[in-house]
Amino acid sequence: MFPLKRSNNSQFLRGRLWEQVFGRTEMVAAGGKNGRSWNLGVVCILTVVALSVHIFASSVVLPLFKDARGGGGNQSRFFPPASSVSGNEQRLETPARAMAVGSEEIRVSETSGSLPTSIDSVINLDHGDPTMYEKFWREAGDAARLIIPGSQTMSYFSDVTNLCWFLEPEFAAEIRRLHRLVGNAVADKDSYIIVGTGSSQLFQAALYALSTSPEVAGRGGAWPLPVVASAPYYSSYPAATDLLQSGLFRWAGDAVTFKDGREPYIEVVCSPSNPDGFLKTESVASGNGMVIHDLAYYWPQYTAITNPADHDIMLFTASKCTGHAGMRLGWAIVRDRDVARRMIKFIEISTIGVSKDSQLRATKILKTVSDRYEVETTEESAKLFHFGRKTMRDRWRRLQAAVAASNVFSLPIFQPDYCNFMKETTLPFPAFAWLKCEHADIEDCESFLRQKYKILTRGGMHFGADAKHVRVSMLDRDGTFDMFIERLSSIEL
Amino acid sequence: MFPLKRSNNSQFLRGRLWEQVFGRTEMVAAGGKNGRSWNLGVVCILTVVALSVHIFASSVVLPLFKDARGGGGNQSRFFPPASSVSGNEQRLETPARAMAVGSEEIRVSETSGSLPTSIDSVINLDHGDPTMYEKFWREAGDAARLIIPGSQTMSYFSDVTNLCWFLEPEFAAEIRRLHRLVGNAVADKDSYIIVGTGSSQLFQAALYALSTSPEVAGRGGAWPLPVVASAPYYSSYPAATDLLQSGLFRWAGDAVTFKDGREPYIEVVCSPSNPDGFLKTESVASGNGMVIHDLAYYWPQYTAITNPADHDIMLFTASKCTGHAGMRLGWAIVRDRDVARRMIKFIEISTIGVSKDSQLRATKILKTVSDRYEVETTEESAKLFHFGRKTMRDRWRRLQAAVAASNVFSLPIFQPDYCNFMKETTLPFPAFAWLKCEHADIEDCESFLRQKYKILTRGGMHFGADAKHVRVSMLDRDGTFDMFIERLSSIEL
Repeated sequence: MFPLKRSNNSQFLRGRLWEQVFGRTEMVAAGGKNGRSWNLGVVCILTVVALSVHIFASSVVLPLFKDARGGGGNQSRFFPPASSVSGNEQRLETPARAMAVGSEEIRVSETSGSLPTSIDSVINLDHGDPTMYEKFWREAGDAARLIIPGSQTMSYFSDVTNLCWFLEPEFAAEIRRLHRLVGNAVADKDSYIIVGTGSSQLFQAALYALSTSPEVAGRGGAWPLPVVASAPYYSSYPAATDLLQSGLFRWAGDAVTFKDGREPYIEVVCSPSNPDGFLKTESVASGNGMVIHDLAYYWPQYTAITNPADHDIMLFTASKCTGHAGMRLGWAIVRDRDVARRMIKFIEISTIGVSKDSQLRATKILKTVSDRYEVETTEESAKLFHFGRKTMRDRWRRLQAAVAASNVFSLPIFQPDYCNFMKETTLPFPAFAWLKCEHADIEDCESFLRQKYKILTRGGMHFGADAKHVRVSMLDRDGTFDMFIERLSSIEL
Repeated sequence: MFPLKRSNNSQFLRGRLWEQVFGRTEMVAAGGKNGRSWNLGVVCILTVVALSVHIFASSVVLPLFKDARGGGGNQSRFFPPASSVSGNEQRLETPARAMAVGSEEIRVSETSGSLPTSIDSVINLDHGDPTMYEKFWREAGDAARLIIPGSQTMSYFSDVTNLCWFLEPEFAAEIRRLHRLVGNAVADKDSYIIVGTGSSQLFQAALYALSTSPEVAGRGGAWPLPVVASAPYYSSYPAATDLLQSGLFRWAGDAVTFKDGREPYIEVVCSPSNPDGFLKTESVASGNGMVIHDLAYYWPQYTAITNPADHDIMLFTASKCTGHAGMRLGWAIVRDRDVARRMIKFIEISTIGVSKDSQLRATKILKTVSDRYEVETTEESAKLFHFGRKTMRDRWRRLQAAVAASNVFSLPIFQPDYCNFMKETTLPFPAFAWLKCEHADIEDCESFLRQKYKILTRGGMHFGADAKHVRVSMLDRDGTFDMFIERLSSIEL
């Protein structure tokens, strides 16, 4: 155990513990302590928790991974990921790595991004890797091709007359154009567009900007400010919030059970929700909440566009809009100039801006999407949102049929809504399926699917929910999805 | 003032204060307090410091910026930055912005990345923007051109069989190949290569990895761990270290005056040194120091390559090697597997990997560099390091002549050394000139140059040094450098 020299150590102890365990819930509890110095009692309790979970981890979870790896072990029969070539250097051993570094890294198994090729292959639907869109962009051909001369993108600066000096002006223009076209967000000239290395960096930039707001002090704020989200919440929010054990903000768990609404806090609202696909609004009815809206999935292929979102801080990402996760590019639309300025400062200090190559590429990609919608003769299969929506609808119908035919699983029940963009009433077709094991014999749905059927999903506990739920990616390649439905249909108890 | 609810607030107060002031020195002092809860006395002192510096800032510095802006105001006569097009949205007002958000953002003025075009233009040599290399890459033509199809770089994953699953294998191969060619670092298969969004992200990843090492606890470490560097040190180290007021590590200032070497700490060694160009080694003689080696400038155009560097953690960046700052791409060579794993975890959580587009581009760029050295008939002007070295040598000779002829300035005196790569004895030609105002009448060299001669440099105080020194970029375009030498030569007192 660590020596407790002062409260920093107990803070740190907290950090170390949830690395060792499947720590979402444990960490939330810790966060709930509102950061006060911990007494030895708490430390003892944590120790017991850590030990017991460690025993659970090594006796129950490790074997599961060995098993999953056993399947993944047939990888000579796998296609490698598109970009994977010299797979031999620094080979990782999944179980060792997983147990050593905690749940975050368990998430990357050797089957990630690869196609299952045989009846007994591991099917990895853990991540939301949007490879479904490769087909669309392959067919797009030269239209979306980018050529970058060797002498381009050399300076740090993109446009120093812009508050966000590292934002490529053409990219900003295409972002505003796309939101105008789709009508999913107000992005007029009064708002500030900030580019980030994925929306994950923008999420942290927003936490920094909000927690360093001068108003917080005036309103009796106590640092680190609590950060909450209504469960089930995106599994990366807690990890990203507490990564550096910041003195500015800390993860405080489920917004619904959050009690400290009297003092300033930050709520992140992901709508449509990752993992369950439902639309969300603020949970804590309090004037002290500062809200970050994560709208990564508010696009016509996933849900009805009922009105242009118009919030203080809205986050979007190319990964889920066009499918280019590898570009690591997101953008924020921010209303307040000072908040925007502090977000930009965060990105300036942490990465001195954002890849210009990716910004140039995203510009070309977004332009291709919008151009095609402005040409009336464009076929539906060549329109990104129509392609995406058709694919998602077909997949959801097949999944719902498979689930309906089983006596094991259930899915959320959605209501239809009118989509102003598609000009028709539609059900949501979320990027993830929030699958529940209804069968009484199954306590841990993630283990059940992994151990018995070599289907990798992400368990409910990572989202502040129960182990009966798992999150399943709906965005993988056709071949992977086909095999998933086939294998799911074969499950009977 | 902020209410003091508990120690976190004083930590936070510290953070807020050094945002309001030219806070390097103030922050270092704060860091030096070894993070113990502060009593009200300290808070009062800080308040006084803050107020006095605020008065200094608004009465002295603000006018300077207004003045500089006045020069920059002629920007209709400037070339815009290469990538700048719609310069009209979200126009920033430098003075307001500068004073509101602190020194970090003062650094981005409207003249950044632009060419001075008239005799009274502002000459901005504040940043190390490596636009000097544009000329080389323009002449390289198609060889360094990259074509990216719309369907590429869509998955999050680059090579899941690699511990660093988001590293493009071809990029890793070109990195190892280049280090073999130049002989500036040991990058064999036993070492781990980690890609980052610039070396700034890798610096933070290293702080995270070292401060969360299990050994730290065993050696009686007290969090946040002190982070030190020998002054003058790179001005971004303090800002990046204390950005989130982490409970894991904190900036503790000059390594030379650092007294707590009995307990674990982190020292960052930048060699050749930014800002002064000298070679550096660890300053604190103690077995408790964990060292990060920032080798951004250990390339043949800047210094003699005397031996292949072989340290636990070595950081490099494309910005200063090939001049592609806009790619935001750096790499670390790491010896220990667990340290590498924790660095990867940091990047995984903070940005879910690194732009693949930039990695593909860097692969092409590095390949072009190495290929040309393997063809004997290649002209020297087509060899990157020869081009860079010739340009730097010429610039340094002109700068030294101008300084020698003046009665105002002085430069560091360097010793020659034998370069194993160039196969000859050479002086260093650093990427920055650490210029000193020797004249007794000049207290603040940065203000002197900005106010009287519209030359923007970075003052010594940002590097933990005195105001008599300034850092001047030697990497700008030819036209900018010519005008700088011309204007510098005209200075007489």
